Amino acid sequence: MSRINLDQANTCIAATFAKGAELGLKPLSAAVVDAGGHMIAFQRQDGASFGRMQIAQGKAAGALALGVSSRKVADMAVERPWFVGALAASASHAVIPAAGGVIVVDQSGAVIGAVGVTGDTSDNDEIAALAGILAAGLRPQD
Amino acid sequence: MSRINLDQANTCIAATFAKGAELGLKPLSAAVVDAGGHMIAFQRQDGASFGRMQIAQGKAAGALALGVSSRKVADMAVERPWFVGALAASASHAVIPAAGGVIVVDQSGAVIGAVGVTGDTSDNDEIAALAGILAAGLRPQD
Amino acid sequence: MSRINLDQANTCIAATFAKGAELGLKPLSAAVVDAGGHMIAFQRQDGASFGRMQIAQGKAAGALALGVSSRKVADMAVERPWFVGALAASASHAVIPAAGGVIVVDQSGAVIGAVGVTGDTSDNDEIAALAGILAAGLRPQD
Amino acid sequence: MSRINLDQANTCIAATFAKGAELGLKPLSAAVVDAGGHMIAFQRQDGASFGRMQIAQGKAAGALALGVSSRKVADMAVERPWFVGALAASASHAVIPAAGGVIVVDQSGAVIGAVGVTGDTSDNDEIAALAGILAAGLRPQD
Repeated sequence: MSRINLDQANTCIAATFAKGAELGLKPLSAAVVDAGGHMIAFQRQDGASFGRMQIAQGKAAGALALGVSSRKVADMAVERPWFVGALAASASHAVIPAAGGVIVVDQSGAVIGAVGVTGDTSDNDEIAALAGILAAGLRPQD
Repeated sequence: MSRINLDQANTCIAATFAKGAELGLKPLSAAVVDAGGHMIAFQRQDGASFGRMQIAQGKAAGALALGVSSRKVADMAVERPWFVGALAASASHAVIPAAGGVIVVDQSGAVIGAVGVTGDTSDNDEIAALAGILAAGLRPQD
Repeated sequence: MSRINLDQANTCIAATFAKGAELGLKPLSAAVVDAGGHMIAFQRQDGASFGRMQIAQGKAAGALALGVSSRKVADMAVERPWFVGALAASASHAVIPAAGGVIVVDQSGAVIGAVGVTGDTSDNDEIAALAGILAAGLRPQD
Repeated sequence: MSRINLDQANTCIAATFAKGAELGLKPLSAAVVDAGGHMIAFQRQDGASFGRMQIAQGKAAGALALGVSSRKVADMAVERPWFVGALAASASHAVIPAAGGVIVVDQSGAVIGAVGVTGDTSDNDEIAALAGILAAGLRPQD
């Protein structure tokens, strides 16, 4: 498996939203992108505000741009806000420094895409993203 | 009904892809956006190239930006390319002048969103978009 | 093989330039990008003007965005300049509609990247790109 | 000598990567730009994430935009983040405020280009950049 297919992406988003319902989270939005940061699938739940696609994709693609989870991008932003701000201004896709963006790898550890979730707290967004990844039979990067 | 909900958007995309399969079309990508042109749901079928989200959303949001289908935006582009080019450069969302972007209205005729499809010929993209809209119990603008 | 590695990219560029020397072409610039359109390697020969990276990458990434060679993107631009212009304004990477951008596929036909060459006529740029791809043991998309 | 030629740029990148291997650094990416900040050559090692070109070029071109190393740009960003942020938003090229971007001068001290390296810690990136510059027979700005 060298890529995330559409069935896996849809399963991932459905499971992300199921986890959100289970935990009583606010309306979520979830993006699944390929290894280049390009969208495979996106859904925004009823009641979510209109800027959520950019945030969800920006968590996922920003993680991929730097090769770490968006939680770590957020850590970088605390330590060096100017660096992350400058990167966000120059990257090919949005870079959103907040937890909820998780890289997906194949069996060999090679990057095959990422998932980004937004809508509740960043910690809860990440929990929902991880639930989605696992439900789709995919593997988050350590 | 004053908006497209996520269930309708997902039903629309599934029916769009079913129509594509029925007609033997190339891999399709479909975007469903709200009345502001913001994404509710998007899916890119396996094998579709990575720039398809911008095209699908640009057909849908471009139609909304001008209040007519993207088929008519394409007609405008033939007659007045400078006008459509300038609009594309200044609009809040992409404006893609090619058939396949269809505005969705409620029972009173008020605009509630749009659907954009890309991947095959523009004519076939539009056929698939209309099939999706009707399958979701929605109504295309005349 | 599911990706182009750096050694292959460097071999491809060296062979592209060797072909240019053999044919007496003007100074060339060559970009090798991954399947997401992101740069793996780029070189600009002495005497080439400074905008060449954007053109070389835009031929390669534009081809990938639409799933066809940049020669076909150029054909689209002749037939529907407004469509290609609007796409160029909205794509994640530059889209340059001129021959010289060639998609690279693996043994199964899956897209693994692209090569973009600029500096001489577009036809000659494409000849040099194809020479580079073959010299690196890679396979151009039909 | 009033410019960096392609042979020097390629030698510089090879020596940068050799230093990275010697020190056991993570996969590196290196950009060599001319005095205008425009790319002469770029390479991204296997395993490096996709956003590395913007970072490498942004270190090099950002240094040139201000006439100091990107280490000093990072110092400025600590003292005056609003200034560097505004510059990053308005400059013709990316401005990345982190060590690893080093200006190259000729015998008279005139600026002829810059090198930007990213992938490991900023301090190690700078060590690798300096190794590359010296190996190519070039001279870093004091």
